[in-house]
Formats: sequence, structure tokens, C-alpha cells
Amino acid sequence: MQSRSDIARLLGLDGNVSIDFVSSAALAANPLGDPAERPVVVYTPPGYDAQASRRYPALYVLHGYTGDVAALISARPWETNVLQWTDRVIRELRMPPALIVLVDGFTRLGGSQYVDSIHNGQYATYTVRDVIGHVDATYRTIAAEGGRAVLGKSSGGFGAMHLVMEHPGVFAAFASHSGDSYFPYAHPPAFATVQRVLEAHEFDIRKFVEVFERKHKRSPAEYTTMEMLAYAAAYSPRTATAFDLELPFDTSSGELIEEVFARWLAFDPAERVKDRHAELARLRLRYLDCGRRDEYNLDIGARVVARRIRELGLDVRHEEFDDDHRNVGYRYPVSLPALAEVLDKE
Amino acid sequence: MQSRSDIARLLGLDGNVSIDFVSSAALAANPLGDPAERPVVVYTPPGYDAQASRRYPALYVLHGYTGDVAALISARPWETNVLQWTDRVIRELRMPPALIVLVDGFTRLGGSQYVDSIHNGQYATYTVRDVIGHVDATYRTIAAEGGRAVLGKSSGGFGAMHLVMEHPGVFAAFASHSGDSYFPYAHPPAFATVQRVLEAHEFDIRKFVEVFERKHKRSPAEYTTMEMLAYAAAYSPRTATAFDLELPFDTSSGELIEEVFARWLAFDPAERVKDRHAELARLRLRYLDCGRRDEYNLDIGARVVARRIRELGLDVRHEEFDDDHRNVGYRYPVSLPALAEVLDKE
Amino acid sequence: MQSRSDIARLLGLDGNVSIDFVSSAALAANPLGDPAERPVVVYTPPGYDAQASRRYPALYVLHGYTGDVAALISARPWETNVLQWTDRVIRELRMPPALIVLVDGFTRLGGSQYVDSIHNGQYATYTVRDVIGHVDATYRTIAAEGGRAVLGKSSGGFGAMHLVMEHPGVFAAFASHSGDSYFPYAHPPAFATVQRVLEAHEFDIRKFVEVFERKHKRSPAEYTTMEMLAYAAAYSPRTATAFDLELPFDTSSGELIEEVFARWLAFDPAERVKDRHAELARLRLRYLDCGRRDEYNLDIGARVVARRIRELGLDVRHEEFDDDHRNVGYRYPVSLPALAEVLDKE
Amino acid sequence: MQSRSDIARLLGLDGNVSIDFVSSAALAANPLGDPAERPVVVYTPPGYDAQASRRYPALYVLHGYTGDVAALISARPWETNVLQWTDRVIRELRMPPALIVLVDGFTRLGGSQYVDSIHNGQYATYTVRDVIGHVDATYRTIAAEGGRAVLGKSSGGFGAMHLVMEHPGVFAAFASHSGDSYFPYAHPPAFATVQRVLEAHEFDIRKFVEVFERKHKRSPAEYTTMEMLAYAAAYSPRTATAFDLELPFDTSSGELIEEVFARWLAFDPAERVKDRHAELARLRLRYLDCGRRDEYNLDIGARVVARRIRELGLDVRHEEFDDDHRNVGYRYPVSLPALAEVLDKE
Repeated sequence: MQSRSDIARLLGLDGNVSIDFVSSAALAANPLGDPAERPVVVYTPPGYDAQASRRYPALYVLHGYTGDVAALISARPWETNVLQWTDRVIRELRMPPALIVLVDGFTRLGGSQYVDSIHNGQYATYTVRDVIGHVDATYRTIAAEGGRAVLGKSSGGFGAMHLVMEHPGVFAAFASHSGDSYFPYAHPPAFATVQRVLEAHEFDIRKFVEVFERKHKRSPAEYTTMEMLAYAAAYSPRTATAFDLELPFDTSSGELIEEVFARWLAFDPAERVKDRHAELARLRLRYLDCGRRDEYNLDIGARVVARRIRELGLDVRHEEFDDDHRNVGYRYPVSLPALAEVLDKE
Repeated sequence: MQSRSDIARLLGLDGNVSIDFVSSAALAANPLGDPAERPVVVYTPPGYDAQASRRYPALYVLHGYTGDVAALISARPWETNVLQWTDRVIRELRMPPALIVLVDGFTRLGGSQYVDSIHNGQYATYTVRDVIGHVDATYRTIAAEGGRAVLGKSSGGFGAMHLVMEHPGVFAAFASHSGDSYFPYAHPPAFATVQRVLEAHEFDIRKFVEVFERKHKRSPAEYTTMEMLAYAAAYSPRTATAFDLELPFDTSSGELIEEVFARWLAFDPAERVKDRHAELARLRLRYLDCGRRDEYNLDIGARVVARRIRELGLDVRHEEFDDDHRNVGYRYPVSLPALAEVLDKE
Repeated sequence: MQSRSDIARLLGLDGNVSIDFVSSAALAANPLGDPAERPVVVYTPPGYDAQASRRYPALYVLHGYTGDVAALISARPWETNVLQWTDRVIRELRMPPALIVLVDGFTRLGGSQYVDSIHNGQYATYTVRDVIGHVDATYRTIAAEGGRAVLGKSSGGFGAMHLVMEHPGVFAAFASHSGDSYFPYAHPPAFATVQRVLEAHEFDIRKFVEVFERKHKRSPAEYTTMEMLAYAAAYSPRTATAFDLELPFDTSSGELIEEVFARWLAFDPAERVKDRHAELARLRLRYLDCGRRDEYNLDIGARVVARRIRELGLDVRHEEFDDDHRNVGYRYPVSLPALAEVLDKE
Repeated sequence: MQSRSDIARLLGLDGNVSIDFVSSAALAANPLGDPAERPVVVYTPPGYDAQASRRYPALYVLHGYTGDVAALISARPWETNVLQWTDRVIRELRMPPALIVLVDGFTRLGGSQYVDSIHNGQYATYTVRDVIGHVDATYRTIAAEGGRAVLGKSSGGFGAMHLVMEHPGVFAAFASHSGDSYFPYAHPPAFATVQRVLEAHEFDIRKFVEVFERKHKRSPAEYTTMEMLAYAAAYSPRTATAFDLELPFDTSSGELIEEVFARWLAFDPAERVKDRHAELARLRLRYLDCGRRDEYNLDIGARVVARRIRELGLDVRHEEFDDDHRNVGYRYPVSLPALAEVLDKE
């Protein structure tokens, strides 16, 4: 790792990029059959190699639904990806040097939500134990709570909130960009779509997935269906058998099944923060933002989460901006420095 | 009324069309300031005048949200309005001769939902007493329950279901095309939109309405806002003062207020049918249909209503078709004959 | 016509509305089989009846493609149609009293463009001779060039420009709202769409039309196809046999046929104004406007026409506004007073 | 290059991927200030290293407008990029082993169209001399016309057609997927959009570009404007000064300037093939395809080009499919084997 990698050069970075592969015990033999060996992308800032003993804080970035690390490092002209943003704000001295770690949370259904699920595998454990373990063992990190933060967009923002609440002591701060929250506004109408699509496949989920995978193009309704299946796999699996899920609606009429949706709500950050005072109180920064035209109404979700955290007597940094859910990567130069600022440094 | 009216001629009808104006006691001095004198459009079939003593059944048609009777009789090339459909199916002998009555349920907020509201006025009473009273007094109708049916699309379908359940003994049958039902899938996500729009008007509803009215063009979000205000005016008015409404969400965060939404649900046909066995049992036809791609998920609503009616031990005619919510007037030639068929004839 | 008609009342007008039916020699036995008897809607301003000898100027309104007079008088809540606008600006004394005449130019293909065509019938002649003849004979008009203006939107704006240039001496002024012009930007890309749609019907135009008419819903591509067929019927008919049209593209490759498109360009106002100095010079007002986001690029068309009229040494009133092609009826209160202002009055 | 690179592993390839950087004399000191050192991505098939003397044919892939090589190797879940397709069809023995070379043709305006331009730099020369020179010098290629093919999508398809016609003797075959052609249907309507956007910037192109680059989000009209500027920079530059372009429309009215558009048409493959018999005749495969719902009407373009090639007495493989312009990468497994098949092998 003496010289910059091809990827770093292609992305025009001053820092460097490594692609490691981590074999995760937490994901071993998962029912869905997704790989247990996962790529981990690690960005090291300019000067990392030269200063051979200095340790750095690490920011863990969680991609959104239908993302993976390959997508996170993908580059498009006129666009700036998370590594390019990091490199730029460090270069402009708007943020102290830090490592950026991109975590792969993809599953065959499009995403794990970074939760431990009997159906998908232990994605929370994989993240906080296997990925962090590898990074701390391989790179000169400040290998302690005070040296780590977690952030992400959309499902990645959800994951960030989930991990700080379920695994206290791992991260000292989180940032959620347009993160999934307040499920009553975000999800139920999509159940109607899923009911229609799956009815056309006789509610054979495996069959639907296989057809989906073979298609060159999929309709928005098909993407929505896959997305809701991914959520069911994370929030309401029935058994550890692939595709054996509890759907939150009655298959014949489509109406909501309150009992199943309650399992989803148990993961809703808007619900969960209510009894996670201790976990939230130990954080140095709680950061939420969302575009005020979010198609999934996650701006309302962020307001509700922010209010409820404040009702616990805790501060929260909550921002809104004039945009929808897509392509809001320009929020990284706001969150990344804020997170790095509160972490321990050498 | 000896010869066909200009409107009848313009619409290319064999039958005739009258536009009457009814002064409604039920709407007198309503808080919103809408007119108490309302147009009623009455279609009489070919032969009505010649057979000077024959009496006819009457089908009452309720327009949807943002509709009125002027809109209902509006004609567009290549399209067929409800009077044109009626005329055609009668001419083709697919339906026995009947009167069609178009009821005006418009309000300043875009529609009354045909319910009695302290805020809007008594639109249910207006319909079943004032409009029907005028029609029975003016035309040779079979002036009894067995001679009347009610139908409509969207909010008009809702109105049809509402009136047969709240005013038993007036109509012998109903048809709901894509009628509002199962509010949990139809409405809550729109509350996020309304919260955003009204926040920009500091939650001054009167001001929003005045700005809306003055605009040449309105955004979809503005239309949605007006629509939800109309529903609040029908389902959850606070007082009899114009624009004094209970909104079903917290104005600052946008989150649902369960207590207010419960007032809405009390009007949801999916809820209401549960304890309206007697009212539904006396009907000769219960007809529901909906496009399977309905943007408001009213196909799910129709399924839920149909199932719950069946759970009462009653039959229901329930059909689905491959379309969305818009321009489904081609369902009239299905419902109109079915309704006319079960009514009394001379 | 002593009291206000039902239509006038329904539309909430102070003035009155008559629907006459004119039997047009110019349309007799037209190849397409469209009716030769046509509705003519005439608006008379408040005071018309009482002042039994006063004569009024008349503004002739031409509807757009897929419109007809029934559509022009159609009303929708929160919208204002041309008669409602007229009534309002007269009531507010922003315009002198005038008659408004709505001309029906519909054909089986969706519109005549108000031109004389061997394929459709003589719609220009019908308008300037049969419709005006009826109106002058029936109403107290100022039956001379100085007492008439013509206006319209989209194809109606085209028609207005066409008639003043081809029938000088009939109208003293015109207004074109978003009128068809500068065909090179407006039409050729649509030929690709038409080629695809008609290929699926083996280029059997009659068959396509019949299928189109039977459908409950049509795709945008099908509407575009019908529209281009209507233009071909107006601009490049092959013979006086129904559906025998010269298409402006090669049916197998879709590429432009310059010779046929030249027939279209001969009708393009942007071309035509070049050698119509005398016809344009005699007008008292030449009015053009267009939304600056017009989907058919007719704002460019209006600019080109305005420039070329100015290059003839003539004035033109040319306005732009921030809107697209749809629902720009709010421009009537600008054009109607401007036209009425320049006409003769008693 | 003994073991698979990180990129190859991340993309899940059996073959290997190198990212080289080529310093191009042809791009040195180009007026736009784009880098003269460019990334070249080279895919080598499984077995490349082991068989240390075997030489392979090479397929040169040109990206589309707003693409670059980083975008070409970007990966998205459920999608397959060109290297993944190549690897797969080679693995499935549907195609003989070959090298794939991804050429970077990006400019500050979004793309070079792979033509030599006094304004952008010599992108055709860069491709056929500098990139090919590097590849032939660095990899075991069959370094002759018979060992090379060129292909691309959209602007890349255009580039493929351009290069085989302007640089005969370099490639033995080409494939154009939805390639730019028949400009009369593809481009002129966009000029209206550009006129509107640039008018808002007072036709200061540099200013527009700088504003565009600084924005987080751009409107479709802004993207269209940039795209047309890129074409003007390729087809109708005025001088070798940055942003000094001849626009193909009159800036004040927006109307077409035929003389400038003629400069564009000189690059239109539909025009150009007419007098390139010799250049086209020497090719072993001429391949064109396009989706039949192409938004830019390039399906018509492909038909016109195919017809005109056939009129030269030459064969062409021309296919159509039911899709639009976006995400048609699934056509690579059709074109790649067809191209590889006709090339020389060892």
C-alpha cells in the first residue's frame, strides 16, 4: 500500500483506497445463500503511510437499499461519491484526517437493513464484530468507541441508528441521512403494490425473486416488492428457511395485519428511541437530516425521531433541505466533518 | 320540455336533459358560505314525455372530489360521459329506461363527501331529502325505496356507500366505482404532503385556500392538501366556524394523531360495514369495483369492504379491472344496467 | 332567449348562452363522414336583450386539437372557461360588451385545423361563410370586418392565423395563444412515434382509427399518431377518399420525406407570413403569446412568427409567460379585451 | 498482474482488469483544459497470463455521453456492466477470449463524440493512435486491423461508426447500440430547450458551464443544454478558444440556422455512410441495434443508416428490441460475441 491504488487514481483521490475481503462468521451459512466473504473498502487519508505510527478515527459508511460497496465507490461525471467527498473535505482542511470504511450489507433481496435476522444472517453482528475487527486489526485505527462513528443514507441511515441503539459502546456518534423511520407513513401504502405483484406470482416469493433476477428491466412496482420483501426478511421472518417470511398484509384482501406490522414497528427508530435513553445518551453526536420533499416521507420520520430524542432530554442535530430522496450525497460534507470532529484523535 | 334541450342535443342524446335549481334547507347558511341553491341535472329517457303517465326508477349519480354537475355533464371528444353512457345502454336495450339524477356535492374545499358536517352543511340530508324531494315532486318517478339507487365514482362511490348505510330506506341498491375506503392505505401518507404545504402557510387554512383559489395553476401537492382539508371538513371538523378543522397530524412534526384519525376511520366504509348489517341486508344490490392499479389503493379498499360484507352473510358483486383511478367512466355501462335491473319498474 | 339559459346559469354567467345548429354547405358530404350540421355556441353579454337595437362586435373562438364546442363550454371547479372569462372581464368593465362565438372544428381525426381540405371538408369556408353567416343573420352583430376578430389556442391559434391570412377582409384582428407554428421544431420528432404506431397496424390508417375509437384508454403515442393524421388530413391529403393521406415520412425507415413535409410547411404560419404582407397589414391587432416551456416548442414558433411579421414592417403584440402548453385559459382575459378594444362599437 | 486485481474481484470476474494511464499527445494542451493523461481500462480474459505467448483480439468500447471509464466499470446490484457481460459470455463459451479496452472520451462538456475538434482536442486520433498504441505495446494483442473491433452505446455507438469511416484500416468491425444518427429527428427540438436555458444565462456559455458544475442537482433542461453544447464543440466549433462555439440556432428567436446545422449533418452517420463505400466495404461486420421506443428516435436513425448501407450493396446486421434508450447493456452479449467471432484469433 505504498502507492495509490488504481481505484484511488481513477477517482482522483489524494488519499488511498484498499479493497479487502473479510470472511464473516456472522454470515456463515446464512439461509439466503449470500456470500460470507465480503468486500470492505477502506479509505486512508493523505499522509497515512508516511506517519507510520499515527492512529486515526474511523467512520463507517452504510449504503442504502439496493446498494453495495461497488455501488458506493462507483463514480459518475459531475457527481461526487462518498470517498471523493471525504478526500475533498480533508484536503480543504474542513475535516480532520480519518479512515472511511464502506460496509457491504447487500443480500439477495437487495439489502439487510444491518440487522440480525434468522432469515438473512447476522448483519449487525457482522458489521460491529467482523468488519470492525478486521479494520482494527489491519489499519492504524483508534480502536475504541471514541474513535468510531457510523453513518449512512436511507437504509444506511436506518442501520446507523439501529447499530448505535442495539450495540452501545461501539460507536460514539451517528449520522442518518434520509434514514428509514416513522414506518406508518413510509411503508403501508407499498403493501398494496406488493399484494398486487405477488398475487400475480401466486405469492410464491422464491419464484418472484427468480423472475426478478432474470429480467433485464424491472418495473417500479417490482422494485417496491423486492424492497418490502427485504424489509420483511429483516423485520418479520417466519423461519430460517429462505423466503419464508411473514408478510404484513393479508394475501387475499391486502389489508394490514397489525400483528406483523407490529414486528416491523419494533425496528422503527421512531418507536425504538423511546426506551433507548442510555444508549443514546452516551453518544457524542446524534445527527439527522432529510430532504423536505422525501418521497417516503422520511422528513416526517426525522422530525419525529428528533423530537422524541429531545423528549429524552438529549440534544440532536437535525437539518432539513429542499430536495427529495435521491442523490443527496452532497450532505456528506456536512455530516462527515461533524462526526470526525467529535471523535478521538491522536 | 317537449323538445330536446340544447344540452341533450349537444351531447348527442336521444333522451332529454333538464337543469333544475333546488333550494336546499339542509345547506342554508352553511359555515363555508357555499350556495344553498344547487343545480340538479335530470336525464329522462326517450319516450318519457310521450308516455305521459308511466313512472320510472331513478339512479342518483354522485360526482367525485373536485367534481360538480357541470363537470359531470361536460363532454370531450372520444370520451363518453355518464349521460351519454346511460343514453347509449338504454338505446341498445341493455338497460330498462330510467331517470338519471346528477347531484351537486361541491364545496369551497372541493367536495362534501355527501356527509352531514357541522362545518360544511348537511350534504347527506340535502341529497336524500332536498334533491330527492325535488325530483319526486317534479318528475314521474317511482317515489319509493324500490325505485331508487345511488352510485358514484371515487368520493361519489364513498357517498353512495355512506348514504345507504346512514339513510336506510331511501335507496334499494348502490354501486361504488373506485370508492374511497380502507383509509389506512388511502390517506396517511398524504398527511406528510399536507404538513409541508400548510407549514409554508403557517397552518392558516383560510389563507392557504385563498391563495389556492387565486392561482392559475396548482401543484399536485396543493391539490392533495385541498383534498385532505375537504376530508377533514367532512370527517373531523372542530367547530361550525369556517376553516376550523381538526387535522389528523401534529402540525410541528407531522406525525399521526390517532384520536383525530379515529374520527376519519369512523367514516371509513371498511370499518362502517361491520355494524351495518340491517342497512346492507335490505339492499337488492351491493356493487363494488375498482381498477387494480388504483393510485390510492382503493382496490384493496374494495376487497376489504367486499370481504367484510360477505362476512355479514350478504352477497356483494365485486369486480376488478386493469386500470388506475382516472377516467373509468366505461364502468358505468356495467353498473347502470345492474342497478336498473333490480329496481321496481312500471 | 328572454331569460338566461340553463347553461348560462350552470356556468354562473351574467350574460346568456345559446346553442344553435348550423347546417354547413361547406361541410356537406365530406369524405370523412363528419356531420355537416354543427353546433355554434353564442354568448351574448348582459344587456343584450334589453337594448334591442344595439349591435355588438363578435369574437370568434376556435378550439384546439381534440376540442370541440362541448369541450369549450365544459366547466371544472376552480377553472374558468372562455365564456366565464368573457363574462367576468365584461362585468369588471375591463372589456367592452361583445358577442363570443364558439366554432366547432372537430373531425373524426380530432380536428380540422380550420383549413379547406379535399379530405376533411372546407372548414375555412365553413367558418368564415357558414358560421359567420348564421351569426350575422341571427344576432345583432356589427356585420363587417371591423366588427370581427378571431382567436384560439393551439390549433385554434393556428386557425386564427390561417383565416386572417387566407380570408382577408373577414376579421380585423387575431390572437394566437400557443398557436401551431414553426413546424420544423413542432412536428418531425413525432413522425418517429407515428411510424412505430402505424407499423403495428400495417399502415392501415382506417384500421388504426377504428381501433383507437373503440379503446377505453389510449396511450400518449396513440394520441400523437391521431394528431399527426389530423395534420396530414389538413395539410397533405392524397385524395378525397377517407384515410387516403400522404404521410410525411417513409413508412419502412421512418425518415422524413421532404416533398410531403414541404406541403405541411406551406401551412406553417412562420413560412406563410412572409408573403402575406397585405393580408396582415390590414389588421388592427396581431397578437401572439406562448408559454416559455411549451412542450411543442411553440414559444419558438411565436418568436419566429413575430419576428417575421416585424420584418414586414408591421407591429405585433407578442408576450411570453412562464408556463407550458396546457391550461393557459388565463390568457383569455389578456387577449379578449385587447381584441374587443380595436373592433368597431356602436 | 499475476493475480486478479481488486476491481476484478469486486466485480466478480474470472478475468482480470488493469487500469492504465496513457499520456496522449493528441489531447495535449487542448483548449477546454481537459487532462491529456487518460485512464484506459483493459480486461484480460481467464488464461491470459498462463499462456504467455498467445495473442488476443481486442474490442474497444466507447462510453456514451456523460460517461467515462469510471462509470463504465461501475457496478450496481442486479445490473451487469460491460466487463461483467464479457466475462460471463467468455465463461459460458459463447464468445472466444478477447481483450476489452474501455476508452475514456469525457470532456468538460460531458463528451467528445470521439471526433477531432479544434475546440476539444483530437479525440479520434487519441483513440486510434494513442490508446491503441498503448494497448498494442503493453498487451499481447493481435496488433492489426483484423484483430480489432470498436463498439459503443449512444454517443459511443456514434463514435464507433465515426472511427471506422474516418480511420479505415484500424478496426475490422463495429457495433453501434442506440448510436446517434439521423440528426434531423434526434436534435433540433432540443435546440428550443437550449435557447431557453442559455437565454437565462445571456448566452454566456462559460458562465452556464460553471454554474452547472457547481450545482448539486441539475434539471433535465440543463443536462440537455450541456449535451447540445458538447455536440456543438464536436461538430461546429468556431475557434480553438474554449466555449467559442457556433450554435445551430438563432439566439434571439431560437430558429434553426441551416448553415450551422449542416456542419452537424456532416457528422451524421445517416449522411456520412452515403460516400464511405470503401471504408465500410472493408469491414467484416457492420452491426446496428436500437430499442424501438428510443426517446431520441435513434431507432429511426438505425433504420436509415442500415438502409443506406444496404443501398451501397453491403450487408448490415440490424436488430430492434422493445425498449427505450436507457440501460440496454444486455445487448452486449449479442454484439460482443458477434464482433469477436469475425476477428482474427491465434
